[in-house]
Amino acid sequence: MNGAESLVHTLLASGVDTCFANPGTSEMHFVAALDRIPGMRCVLGLQENVVTGMADGYFRMAGKPAATLLHCGPGLANGLANLHNARRARSGIVNCVGDQATYHRPLDAQLTADTEGFARGVSAWVRTVQRATEVARDAAVAVQAARTSPGQVATLILPSDTCWDEAPDGPAAALPVPARPQADPLAIRNAARALRERSNVLILLGGLALTGAAQALAHRIAQATGAAVLAEMSNGRVERGRGRMALERVPYPVDQAVAALAPYTTIILVNAKAPVGFFAYPGKPSRHHREDADIIPLSRYEADAVQALAALAEEVGAPAAALPDPGPKPEPVRGAPTPEGLARTLAALLPDHAVVADEAVSFGRGFFAQTHAAAPHDWLQITGGAIGCGIPLATGAAIGAPGRRVVNLQADGSGMYTLQGLWTQAREKLPVTTIVLSNRSYAILLGEYRNVGANPGRTAMDMMDLGNPDLDWVKLANGMGVEGARTTTLEGCADLMRQSFAQDGPFVIELVI
Amino acid sequence: MNGAESLVHTLLASGVDTCFANPGTSEMHFVAALDRIPGMRCVLGLQENVVTGMADGYFRMAGKPAATLLHCGPGLANGLANLHNARRARSGIVNCVGDQATYHRPLDAQLTADTEGFARGVSAWVRTVQRATEVARDAAVAVQAARTSPGQVATLILPSDTCWDEAPDGPAAALPVPARPQADPLAIRNAARALRERSNVLILLGGLALTGAAQALAHRIAQATGAAVLAEMSNGRVERGRGRMALERVPYPVDQAVAALAPYTTIILVNAKAPVGFFAYPGKPSRHHREDADIIPLSRYEADAVQALAALAEEVGAPAAALPDPGPKPEPVRGAPTPEGLARTLAALLPDHAVVADEAVSFGRGFFAQTHAAAPHDWLQITGGAIGCGIPLATGAAIGAPGRRVVNLQADGSGMYTLQGLWTQAREKLPVTTIVLSNRSYAILLGEYRNVGANPGRTAMDMMDLGNPDLDWVKLANGMGVEGARTTTLEGCADLMRQSFAQDGPFVIELVI
Repeated sequence: MNGAESLVHTLLASGVDTCFANPGTSEMHFVAALDRIPGMRCVLGLQENVVTGMADGYFRMAGKPAATLLHCGPGLANGLANLHNARRARSGIVNCVGDQATYHRPLDAQLTADTEGFARGVSAWVRTVQRATEVARDAAVAVQAARTSPGQVATLILPSDTCWDEAPDGPAAALPVPARPQADPLAIRNAARALRERSNVLILLGGLALTGAAQALAHRIAQATGAAVLAEMSNGRVERGRGRMALERVPYPVDQAVAALAPYTTIILVNAKAPVGFFAYPGKPSRHHREDADIIPLSRYEADAVQALAALAEEVGAPAAALPDPGPKPEPVRGAPTPEGLARTLAALLPDHAVVADEAVSFGRGFFAQTHAAAPHDWLQITGGAIGCGIPLATGAAIGAPGRRVVNLQADGSGMYTLQGLWTQAREKLPVTTIVLSNRSYAILLGEYRNVGANPGRTAMDMMDLGNPDLDWVKLANGMGVEGARTTTLEGCADLMRQSFAQDGPFVIELVI
Repeated sequence: MNGAESLVHTLLASGVDTCFANPGTSEMHFVAALDRIPGMRCVLGLQENVVTGMADGYFRMAGKPAATLLHCGPGLANGLANLHNARRARSGIVNCVGDQATYHRPLDAQLTADTEGFARGVSAWVRTVQRATEVARDAAVAVQAARTSPGQVATLILPSDTCWDEAPDGPAAALPVPARPQADPLAIRNAARALRERSNVLILLGGLALTGAAQALAHRIAQATGAAVLAEMSNGRVERGRGRMALERVPYPVDQAVAALAPYTTIILVNAKAPVGFFAYPGKPSRHHREDADIIPLSRYEADAVQALAALAEEVGAPAAALPDPGPKPEPVRGAPTPEGLARTLAALLPDHAVVADEAVSFGRGFFAQTHAAAPHDWLQITGGAIGCGIPLATGAAIGAPGRRVVNLQADGSGMYTLQGLWTQAREKLPVTTIVLSNRSYAILLGEYRNVGANPGRTAMDMMDLGNPDLDWVKLANGMGVEGARTTTLEGCADLMRQSFAQDGPFVIELVI
């Protein structure tokens, strides 16, 4: 057996059975091993940021890491932005990067690059394999790192000779994954005391505290103590809809965030961090909570949030509390597209257990409020602010959650970064409905620009307007084998959503807004 | 004046008047300064690897650096692959990256990343500006670094507060650019002695030694001494066609490269390095020249190659020598597409002083030999092996060489990495003809896979075949506002080339091969 075969066997033995790939010459022995050894589903992306974004979406839904297969330093570089998002979502990925043979690297051939240097900024764990006989051990450690709670990007760099040389010891067994840490009893007592003794307390949920089970406990505590509950601004996955909390997020715009957090003099962090601005702005605060707020950590991001919240509920003596009924599902809305109208239409039509991949950016900030009464669903956000996340995330989510409809709410400017992902949706016949919010501009930037205090002139518009020429998303989708249609009304969008939800494969709706 | 305004004034004062941009929120003051201060042409790319690839193509043709404008670490990350190609082409780029405000960075907001860490692997020079009053000085040094022979990637990272804070001292003056080093007299005497005393000498030209003037001198030396002349395998820019040498390159495939270099026991390097393989292969050599070859460096990559070759010509007493006539232009070829047929058709139709951006990959290896008798033109190659270079390179070249037709020979798989560049061609109405070589596979990988000794099975084909579904390049081009047509014959391709060369804007020809 060669090193590549020991790698594939080790990945499979460790429970990694899906590989998002964009291979090159130095990975041919890896590809050959994947071909010879049954059991790994290999999914091709036509650009590496699609590959890494798919791996992120897969983890968020499947709850276990996939492997990637990338080509040398520049191939990794192309995938860094969505690895950055995955890092912020705390997704586990076994990020496999082929590279020059160990003895070839010193010659500095054209494709030679600082692969480890590129990897470090997005990875919790990086290792370059030194010889074929160590591939299996290193791969097992990489999977262990990727599975360490809540999930980590583990980058395994594989010089080509470590793949083609013999590895007579064969694969390695799966390594044990460390259990999620339990909450510190002192932290539970601190939080409970604050909840009992103070008013104006906010419970801020992040990461593993956003499951339905964790929300139910947070609601119970809130009911018993009068505390408020919010989610962080950007979240990898929130279980939402009927049967879950009507949970709101800390708003994105500084002024709104500061206003939303102004009432709270105590903030209990449950797998969350104290809210800071996405960006700094002149004369505005970087921290969005009150300066005098007391920040009380209950559990760190890697902790077992359900255990922590259950212990807290017990400590404060919170009785069982049913979640309030969110009221009837909204009706679909007619007429010109508005954020609220689109959100209500989505809430009306979303199938049970759908997955929403949300890169709606400026148009989508109000979607949450209108969709609490929708059928139960999962909501995946762009977590690291590296735009170009939505299409790959939706694609990977569809593979990680088979049988569930995925709806990608996709800003047009951001969608253009990784439109190649549509091709993978067609190839894999995935049930993804992409709603492109076509405003033909970087609308978020136009808003930010006006905050700078100026109206954009010709040069500024040259950098923020996407309307010259207009992008035609139907043609772009068709060009990659995906069916599509354009509409300018919400009823048209609703019709196309119904049509799309009733069929198996992907569909692109260009909603001109 | 704020820091951003001091930056724009300094760039303009240093001769940088073109900015390839994909800005974000943290760059709004930079955008506002570009808007207020006349003189900078700003060109938007819809993804950052388009932006950096355009800057590379611009430098290769204009011979001076453009600025980029990128958004934080992940925006830079998206552009790293073409910065890697630019580094290998030794192109000068003033790579401006906005970032979190200095005081906001420690809070580790979602978009915060290791921007310097990402930049290091592709940059000869990296600096993060610390305060607004230092922007101007740092920008002047960045331009100086970018212009240092033959050209360098200089990355200037601009935290947002350094752009919006006041910079009362205003812009900085341009800094002097170091002159290109002259050849070492001892190196000239060594090379001359080898040329006089030995047979089987190869003169290997790279970088600055590939201008027409340098070629004429190399030819003169070769005629006088019997030496052979080759170019390196991958070159940023070669002046070619009638009036230049019929210069061949070191071949890409190992066996062909070894065979081509086998005759030479002495290799004189003129701004070149001793040939090594693009990749290592089991049982094949990494260095492609003879083990016993004597490697004699005449001039380093940053040196004045024309001066070095002129001194060498004088030292060996080489008389003036006219370049041989390359014979008549080939006639256009009819019938099914072949590499030779397409190259001959191109040679027949290429307008005077056209620019060829070559990312033809597997189909294009023989193009050079058929195009020596074409009209004078420049040939730009992918230099770092990071595919996704062709469309951006062509776009930037058209901006860097106004009035000249650009022909992009573009493999389909590679084209998909940066297809967004077509939109910029439409927006800027650039005279770029893209010939997409549509084989609907990663053909180079299929060849490499067979070298591994196996026929690809289903899983391997899942990662190398692009035919399920077929990409439709006409629809993709139309979707971005670019006219296009498909053909399956060389005469059809010739007709479309003629049609495209006669009109002003961009055009995509999908040639099904």
